[in-house]
Amino acid sequence: MSDIIRNTGFGQNDSNWDLPQVVAELKHVRLSARHNNSKLSESGSYELPAADVLVNIVKEIISALFPRRLGSPSLRDDNEDFFVSHKLFIALSALQRQVLTELNYFYLKKHGSVQEIKQRPEVRTVEIVNHFSKSLPKIRQLLDQDLIAGLKGDPAANCLDEILLCYPGMRAMIYHRLAHELYKSGVPLIARIISEVAHSDTGIDIHPGATIGGGFFIDHGTGVVIGETAIIGERVRLYQAVTLGAKRFPAGANGELTKGLARHPIVEDDVVIYAGATILGRITIGQGSTIGGNVWLTHSVPPNSHVTQADFNNDIVSGGLGI
Amino acid sequence: MSDIIRNTGFGQNDSNWDLPQVVAELKHVRLSARHNNSKLSESGSYELPAADVLVNIVKEIISALFPRRLGSPSLRDDNEDFFVSHKLFIALSALQRQVLTELNYFYLKKHGSVQEIKQRPEVRTVEIVNHFSKSLPKIRQLLDQDLIAGLKGDPAANCLDEILLCYPGMRAMIYHRLAHELYKSGVPLIARIISEVAHSDTGIDIHPGATIGGGFFIDHGTGVVIGETAIIGERVRLYQAVTLGAKRFPAGANGELTKGLARHPIVEDDVVIYAGATILGRITIGQGSTIGGNVWLTHSVPPNSHVTQADFNNDIVSGGLGI
Amino acid sequence: MSDIIRNTGFGQNDSNWDLPQVVAELKHVRLSARHNNSKLSESGSYELPAADVLVNIVKEIISALFPRRLGSPSLRDDNEDFFVSHKLFIALSALQRQVLTELNYFYLKKHGSVQEIKQRPEVRTVEIVNHFSKSLPKIRQLLDQDLIAGLKGDPAANCLDEILLCYPGMRAMIYHRLAHELYKSGVPLIARIISEVAHSDTGIDIHPGATIGGGFFIDHGTGVVIGETAIIGERVRLYQAVTLGAKRFPAGANGELTKGLARHPIVEDDVVIYAGATILGRITIGQGSTIGGNVWLTHSVPPNSHVTQADFNNDIVSGGLGI
Amino acid sequence: MSDIIRNTGFGQNDSNWDLPQVVAELKHVRLSARHNNSKLSESGSYELPAADVLVNIVKEIISALFPRRLGSPSLRDDNEDFFVSHKLFIALSALQRQVLTELNYFYLKKHGSVQEIKQRPEVRTVEIVNHFSKSLPKIRQLLDQDLIAGLKGDPAANCLDEILLCYPGMRAMIYHRLAHELYKSGVPLIARIISEVAHSDTGIDIHPGATIGGGFFIDHGTGVVIGETAIIGERVRLYQAVTLGAKRFPAGANGELTKGLARHPIVEDDVVIYAGATILGRITIGQGSTIGGNVWLTHSVPPNSHVTQADFNNDIVSGGLGI
Amino acid sequence: MSDIIRNTGFGQNDSNWDLPQVVAELKHVRLSARHNNSKLSESGSYELPAADVLVNIVKEIISALFPRRLGSPSLRDDNEDFFVSHKLFIALSALQRQVLTELNYFYLKKHGSVQEIKQRPEVRTVEIVNHFSKSLPKIRQLLDQDLIAGLKGDPAANCLDEILLCYPGMRAMIYHRLAHELYKSGVPLIARIISEVAHSDTGIDIHPGATIGGGFFIDHGTGVVIGETAIIGERVRLYQAVTLGAKRFPAGANGELTKGLARHPIVEDDVVIYAGATILGRITIGQGSTIGGNVWLTHSVPPNSHVTQADFNNDIVSGGLGI
Amino acid sequence: MSDIIRNTGFGQNDSNWDLPQVVAELKHVRLSARHNNSKLSESGSYELPAADVLVNIVKEIISALFPRRLGSPSLRDDNEDFFVSHKLFIALSALQRQVLTELNYFYLKKHGSVQEIKQRPEVRTVEIVNHFSKSLPKIRQLLDQDLIAGLKGDPAANCLDEILLCYPGMRAMIYHRLAHELYKSGVPLIARIISEVAHSDTGIDIHPGATIGGGFFIDHGTGVVIGETAIIGERVRLYQAVTLGAKRFPAGANGELTKGLARHPIVEDDVVIYAGATILGRITIGQGSTIGGNVWLTHSVPPNSHVTQADFNNDIVSGGLGI
Repeated sequence: MSDIIRNTGFGQNDSNWDLPQVVAELKHVRLSARHNNSKLSESGSYELPAADVLVNIVKEIISALFPRRLGSPSLRDDNEDFFVSHKLFIALSALQRQVLTELNYFYLKKHGSVQEIKQRPEVRTVEIVNHFSKSLPKIRQLLDQDLIAGLKGDPAANCLDEILLCYPGMRAMIYHRLAHELYKSGVPLIARIISEVAHSDTGIDIHPGATIGGGFFIDHGTGVVIGETAIIGERVRLYQAVTLGAKRFPAGANGELTKGLARHPIVEDDVVIYAGATILGRITIGQGSTIGGNVWLTHSVPPNSHVTQADFNNDIVSGGLGI
Repeated sequence: MSDIIRNTGFGQNDSNWDLPQVVAELKHVRLSARHNNSKLSESGSYELPAADVLVNIVKEIISALFPRRLGSPSLRDDNEDFFVSHKLFIALSALQRQVLTELNYFYLKKHGSVQEIKQRPEVRTVEIVNHFSKSLPKIRQLLDQDLIAGLKGDPAANCLDEILLCYPGMRAMIYHRLAHELYKSGVPLIARIISEVAHSDTGIDIHPGATIGGGFFIDHGTGVVIGETAIIGERVRLYQAVTLGAKRFPAGANGELTKGLARHPIVEDDVVIYAGATILGRITIGQGSTIGGNVWLTHSVPPNSHVTQADFNNDIVSGGLGI
Repeated sequence: MSDIIRNTGFGQNDSNWDLPQVVAELKHVRLSARHNNSKLSESGSYELPAADVLVNIVKEIISALFPRRLGSPSLRDDNEDFFVSHKLFIALSALQRQVLTELNYFYLKKHGSVQEIKQRPEVRTVEIVNHFSKSLPKIRQLLDQDLIAGLKGDPAANCLDEILLCYPGMRAMIYHRLAHELYKSGVPLIARIISEVAHSDTGIDIHPGATIGGGFFIDHGTGVVIGETAIIGERVRLYQAVTLGAKRFPAGANGELTKGLARHPIVEDDVVIYAGATILGRITIGQGSTIGGNVWLTHSVPPNSHVTQADFNNDIVSGGLGI
Repeated sequence: MSDIIRNTGFGQNDSNWDLPQVVAELKHVRLSARHNNSKLSESGSYELPAADVLVNIVKEIISALFPRRLGSPSLRDDNEDFFVSHKLFIALSALQRQVLTELNYFYLKKHGSVQEIKQRPEVRTVEIVNHFSKSLPKIRQLLDQDLIAGLKGDPAANCLDEILLCYPGMRAMIYHRLAHELYKSGVPLIARIISEVAHSDTGIDIHPGATIGGGFFIDHGTGVVIGETAIIGERVRLYQAVTLGAKRFPAGANGELTKGLARHPIVEDDVVIYAGATILGRITIGQGSTIGGNVWLTHSVPPNSHVTQADFNNDIVSGGLGI
Repeated sequence: MSDIIRNTGFGQNDSNWDLPQVVAELKHVRLSARHNNSKLSESGSYELPAADVLVNIVKEIISALFPRRLGSPSLRDDNEDFFVSHKLFIALSALQRQVLTELNYFYLKKHGSVQEIKQRPEVRTVEIVNHFSKSLPKIRQLLDQDLIAGLKGDPAANCLDEILLCYPGMRAMIYHRLAHELYKSGVPLIARIISEVAHSDTGIDIHPGATIGGGFFIDHGTGVVIGETAIIGERVRLYQAVTLGAKRFPAGANGELTKGLARHPIVEDDVVIYAGATILGRITIGQGSTIGGNVWLTHSVPPNSHVTQADFNNDIVSGGLGI
Repeated sequence: MSDIIRNTGFGQNDSNWDLPQVVAELKHVRLSARHNNSKLSESGSYELPAADVLVNIVKEIISALFPRRLGSPSLRDDNEDFFVSHKLFIALSALQRQVLTELNYFYLKKHGSVQEIKQRPEVRTVEIVNHFSKSLPKIRQLLDQDLIAGLKGDPAANCLDEILLCYPGMRAMIYHRLAHELYKSGVPLIARIISEVAHSDTGIDIHPGATIGGGFFIDHGTGVVIGETAIIGERVRLYQAVTLGAKRFPAGANGELTKGLARHPIVEDDVVIYAGATILGRITIGQGSTIGGNVWLTHSVPPNSHVTQADFNNDIVSGGLGI
C-alpha cells in the first residue's frame, strides 16, 4: 500500500475505471461516427481552423485598429505606427495559415485529394488576406460611426471611450465587421468562429453574413439575434432581445432545408427597434420607422411607421422600451 | 518622502484605508454569517468542489470525446487511443478527488464528523467515477446524434464540424450530457457547477437534472431555460429564449418551498419549439407538435398539435420563428 | 527560395498585404476620428482605467469578502485575517491607481491640463478609496442576505454554498454591490467596467447606478436589464429576462437626449417579478406585489397587487413563471 | 493524403516510430530497474518531495525574509507584517506537505508499509515545520551579517542592496541557511533539493550539512565546493573555485564507502581563502589565517598562518587572488 | 501635457531616442553582416532549430524515460504506459519538425535551393527520428547504470532517487545521452543546443560528440569539460573541474583550424579522475587508473596507474580530491 | 474535525507555527537591520531596479539586435524594421523607468529627499537612455566580430549561427556589451544586475566595468572571471576558468578597502589565454602573446611572449589547453 493511497484515500485496486474497455468503446463509436458522417457530409478527417488561434488573431487586429485604447496605453504619436505595423504583421501571418486551412478543408471534402487542384487554395488564400488587409481602414471608419451612434443613443453614456470600453453592443460590432469581411471573401467557417466568440462574450448573436451599415448601435444587447441574410441600413438602433429572423424554412424535394435563400428582414436607414421586438421573414422596415417593445411583426411597413403593441391595460406606449 | 510617493502620487499617510478596522469588521460579519448559516443549513466550514478544477476536468474529457476536433489536430489513427487514454486518466483522477470532496461536504454537514461513517464516502466515490467512466461512450453516441440534428435543422450550417466548433447549443449539450450523468450519480453540486460553466458561456441554462433524448438541437440559444425535472424526448428542436419552467411552487406547512417535485414539462419526440415560447408546469407536449414563437402555454397538447399566437395584425404564422 | 516558403506554402512576394499603405490609411482614419471626437467629447488622448486590471482587483476583493469559499480553501481560523489583510492591501493599492487614472481622465477632458488644478485628483482619490474600503463590511452583510434569499427562493437549491458557487444571479450581485459603491463615489467609468464583466459572465445587465436593497435574488438571470435610476427595496425576487427600463427619452432643445433624469421603476419591498416581465418608466410597484411572467407594465400598481397576463387560452396563471 | 501531410511534409506511413514496441521495451527496462533497485536501496515506488514545489516554497520564504527587497517594492511600514504573515502561511502549509512526503518516503522504504507506524510521520512533520518557522528570525539575522561582510569585502560593491540583489554568493547563502536548518531537522532530501537549486543558479555547491557561521562571504563563487561535514567559523571569506573537500573515502568490510564520517575541513573565525585553493580532509585552518590562491592544503595550520604558493617565477604573492 | 507625463515623469519630447535613425543603422549593420557572413559561411537567411522548443521536447522525453520520478507522481502500474506513449508521441512529432529544419538549413546553405534535392531531407528526417525512438530503451538502461554508479560513488548519497533528483552530474548525463544519439544521427546543431541546456543548468560542458560508457558518474561537476572526440569506458568517475581536452589545434594550408581530428583523450574502464585534473590530447588513460586532484597530464599512462601531484609540502595524497 | 484534516493529515491545533510570534521577531530583526544599515550605507527604504523587469528588457533588445535569429524566425525583409522598432520602443520605455529608479535610489541615499534636487534624475535619465539607444548599432557590429572570432577559434563549430545559438561565451558577451554601455552611462546597479543574469546562465563572470575590444571569444567559459578595471584589446581569445583578477586590495586609513583603483590586467590585441590561467594585478600582457593552461602570472610580459608551465613530467605544452 503506497503513499498514493494516503494522499488520495484510494488504493490502486479500488479505482477500476475500466479504462482499456472505455477507450476501445470510444474508438468504436468514433469510427462509426466518422463512417456515417462521411456519407452525410464527408467530414471527419481534415484539419480545421483553430478557435483559440483565431481569438488571438482578432485581438491583435483590434489592438491595431484602436492602438491606444485597446492596444497599449503608453503609445505616443511617434511610435503608434510601429505598433500598428507589428501587430498587423503578426495577425495577418497567422490569419494566412488559418485561411489556407479552411480552404483546404473544403477543397479536400469536395475532391478527396489536394493533389489534382494544386496551388489553388494557396493562391486564393493570398487574395483573401490581401483583400482583408486593405479593408481594415474602412472597417475602422465604420466603427468610429458606431461609437458616435452609441454616445448619441444612450443618455447613460458619458463619452466615446466609455462606449468603446464598456458597451457589449460595440464589442459585438467590432467582431462582426471583421467577421463579415472574411465571410464575404469565402472563409465562412473562420467568420462564424469569430462571430461566436462575440456571441459568447456579449449574448448578441449576429450571423457573419448579415450586412450592416454605419452608425449602428445595440444597447444592452443580450438575446439579440440577427440572421444570415439580414440587411440593415445606416444609423439603425436596436435594444436587447430583438430578433431579425426567418419566418419559415422551405424544404426541397428531398426533404432537406433549402440553403442560401434571402429569408431575413431588410431594415432601412434611421430605424429604431425597441427591446424584445420580433421581426420575421424577408420583409422591409421602411426608413425612419420605430418598432415598439415586444412587437411581433411579419409584414413590411412603410417609411416612418410607428408600430407599437398596446400594454395589457391599453396604455399606448409611444416611446417604446429603450432603457 | 520616499520614491513610492513619486511613483504613485501618494504619501504613506494620505492613504488611510483603516485596514485593521476593516479587517476586524469583516471578520465580525463573517463569523456572524457562519453562526447564522449553520442554523439554517449547517454550511460554512467544509471544503467544496473547486470550479476551476472542474472546468479543466471537463475540458480534458471533451478532448477525449472528440480527440481530433476538440483535442489535438495532429493526432493520427495509430496514436489517437494513447491520447484518449492519457486524457481520461488525468481527468478521472482529478474528478475522483472532487467527488470525494462533495460527498464529504454533504456527509459532514449531516453528521458533523466523518469519523462515525468511515470509508463510506471513499467507497461511493469509486462507484461514481467508475460509473461515469463507463457512460462516456454512450454520451459520445448521443452527442453524435445531436450533431446530425444540428446540421439538418439549420439551413445556415455547412457541415458537422461547423456545428461542433461554432454552435453554442452544441457546446451546451456537451456540458449537459456530462453534468447530467454526474447529477444522477449523486454529486449534484459538481453537476451544477459544470452546468453553470456552459450557462455563462452560451446563455443557455439547462439544469443538470433535466432528462434529454438524442438528436436534440438548440439554435442561437441565448435565454433558453430548461428546469430540473423536465423530460425531453428524441429529436426535439428549440430556438432562443424558450422556457421549459415550473408554474407554481407549493409550500409546505413550515412555509418553505417543497423541493424535488416533478414540476417542469414533458416534451415528447420530434417536437419543435420556436423562439421565446414559454411552457410551464408538469404538462405534456405531444409527439410531433410544433409550438410557435412567443407562445405562452400552461396545459398539455396532444400529438401533432400546431400551437401558434396571432401576431398583432392577425397574420397567422405557420412556420414559427426559426431563424 | 527559403524554408519559410516551404513551411507556410507561400513565397515572400505572394503575400502582398500592402502593409505600409494600410498602416498609413489607418493612421489617417485614426487622426481624423480623434479630431472629430475632440469636438464632440474631447476624448482621444488621455489614459483610461484598464479593464484587465480591474478584473483582477475585483477578484482579490471577492477573495477577501469570502476568504474560504472564493479565496483559499486551506485557510484556517487563525490565519484568515492575514489572508484578508493581504488581499485587501493588494486590491486597494491597485484600485487607487485606477481611480486616479479615471479622475485625471475626466479632469483633463474638462480642463485640458492637470496643471491648474494640481493635487485635486490625488486628494479625491484617497477619499474614494478610503470610503470604499470602509464600505466592504456592509457589502458583505448585504451579500449574506442575498445568499439566504437565494436558498429560500429556489426549490432546486440545496445549501448556501451552492448559491454562492453556482448562481449567476449571486455573482452578478457581488459585482453590482462593489460597482455601485464606486459609482456613488464618483468613478462611474470604473463602476461600469466592473458591471460589464458581470454582464458578460452572467447575461445579467445591472447598471452600476441602480440602488438595490438586501435579500435580493435573481434566478436564471439571462436577459435581465436593470436601468441606472431604478430603486429596488428589500427582499425582491426576479427571474430571467425581466426588464426594469425607461419608457421614453426626452430630448433637450439641441435635440440631444437629456441625461441623468429619474426614468426607471421603483420596486418596493417583498415584490416578486416573474420571467420576461417588462416594467417601464418612473412608476412604483407597491410593496408585496407579484408581477406575472411576460407582463408589460407602464403604470404604478398599489401594494399587494397581483398583475398577470392571460395565456392565449384564458387559463389564469396564479403562481407565475418561476422555474 | 490529408492536410497534415501538407503541413509537416510527412505522410502517416512515413513516420514509423514503432511506438508500441518502444513503449513495451521501456516498460521492460523500467520494471527491471525497479526490481534491481529495490534490492539495492528499496526505492522505486514511493512519492518524493517535488522540486518545483520546493522552489516556490523557498521563494515565498525569501519574500517574507526580505519583504521590500525580494518581496514587493510597494509595501509600506503599516502593511509589511500582513505580507510577511501571508507569505509564511502559504510557504509553511506547502512545506508541511513536502516534509510529510519525505518522512513517509523513508519510513516506507524501511518498513514497507505505513500501517504499523501510524501517525508517527505526521507528528514528526509538525515538529519539523514548527521548529523551522521559529528559526527564521535567526536566519534573517545571520543573512544580515553576511550582507555586511559582502559590502566590506568587495571594493566593487556600492551598497548593501547591491550585495542582496546581485551577488551569487549571497543568493547561495540564503538558500544554504534555509536548507541547513531543514537538513538538521531530519529532511535531508528536501534540504539537498534546495541546495541544488542554488548550485544550478550560482555554480556554488554547498552541501546542506555544512555548518557556517555569520558574516560569511563568497565572491564570484563559480566552482566553490563545500562538503557535508565542513565547519566554518565567523566572518570567513572565500573566492571562486575554492574546495573544502574530503581527502579519502574509507571503505568498510563489504567494499562500500563508509557514510557519515567527519571528513571535511574546520575553518576557524576570520579566515580568508583565495580563489582556486583546495583544502582537503578533517584538518583545521586556524583563526585569522590567509590561504593564497591555488594553494593545495591537506594538513592543519595554526592561527594567523599565511599560506601561499610561489608563482612560476618566484614572485611571492602576498595579497592573494581576490578580484 | 498628457497623463503619460504624469505617470512616468517624462514628456513626449524629452525622450528623443532617435528610433528611426537607430533602426536604420541597425538595418545597415545587419545587412552588412549578412553580406559578409554569406561569403564566410553562407549563413543568414534560413530558419534554425528553436532552442525553446527543443527544451520542451527533451523534458517530455525525460518524463517518458522516468515516468513516476520525473513525469507524474500520481501514475500507477496500469496507466504508466498510456503516459509514456502520449509523451513520446508529442515529443517525437515536435522533434521531427526540428530535425527537418536543421537538415533543410544545412542543405540550403550548401545548395542554395531545396528544389534540386527534393524530398531528400524529409526521408532522412524520418530515418533519424525512427532511429532515435528505438534507441530510447537502451538510453534508459545506461542511465540506470549511471544512477547506481552515483549511489556507490558518493558517501553523502542516501538512495537512487536522491541521485536522480538532486545530482547535477546525473542531469547532465540524461541530456548528454539523448544529445549524443542525435549527434551520431546527423543533427549536430540540435544535439549541441540540447547539450548547452545542460551546461547552463549544471556547469558541466560535455560535447554531444563525446562517447561515454555506462555507469558514469560526475560528482559536483561545475567546470567539467569533455571534448568532442573523447572516448570514455565503463564505470568511470570524475569530480568537478576535470578537463578532457585537446592539446593543440593543427592548422591547414589556408591557416584555418583543421576540423574533425581525433584530439581528445581515451579513458578506459574503471578510471577515477579527481577534481581539477587536466588531461590533454589523444592519449590513453589505462584501465583502472586513478588520476589525482589538479594533476596536469599530456601523455598516456598504462592500466592501474596512480598519478598524483605532490602538494606544496610534500604530503602525498593517495586518495585524491573526492568530496 | 474538518475535511482539511482529512486532506492533509493534520488537525488545526497540531500545526502550531507560532506565526504571530515569528512575524513579530522578523519585524524586530528587520527594523534593527534597517537602523544599522542606514548608519553604514543609508540603504533600506528606497525602491530598487527590478531584476525580472531588466531580464525582459534585455531579451527585447537582443531580439531587436538579431531579429531573425533571436527574435522571430518568420520575419521577412519587408517587415524586419517594424519588428525592430516595436521591440526597441517597448524595451527603451521600460528601461527609462528602471534608470530613473536607480538614479532616484542613489540620489535619495545621498540627499534624503528628492525635493531639493528636483527634475535632475529625470533629465539624466533621458540622456542615459538616448545615449544607450544610439550605441546599439555599434554594439551589434562588435557582436558580429565576436561571432566571426568564435567560428575561427573553435574547430568544433560549423557555422556562425551555431556560435550565436549555442555558445555560452557568445551569450555572455551579448549581455556584457549591453551592460558595459549602461555601466559607463552611470547606472552601475542595472549594469551589474544584467551581468549577473549572464553569470548565472553561463558561469562566466564579467564585471560590467571591464573594457573589451571586438572579436573577443571565450570557449566553454565556466569559471571565467574578469574584473572591473580589466582592459582587453582586439581579437583576444580565452578558455574556461581563466581569471583576470586583482592582486591585492589596498586599505585606506580607516581600514576600509579603497574603491575604484585600476587593479586588473591589461590584455593587448591578439592574445590567447588557455584554460585555468590566473593573471593578477595591473600588469600588461603584450600584443600577440600566448598564456598556457594553468599558468599563474603576476607580472607583465612583452609582446609575442609564450608563457607556459611545465607539466609534471617536463613535457612542454606548446599549443596550450584549448579544447
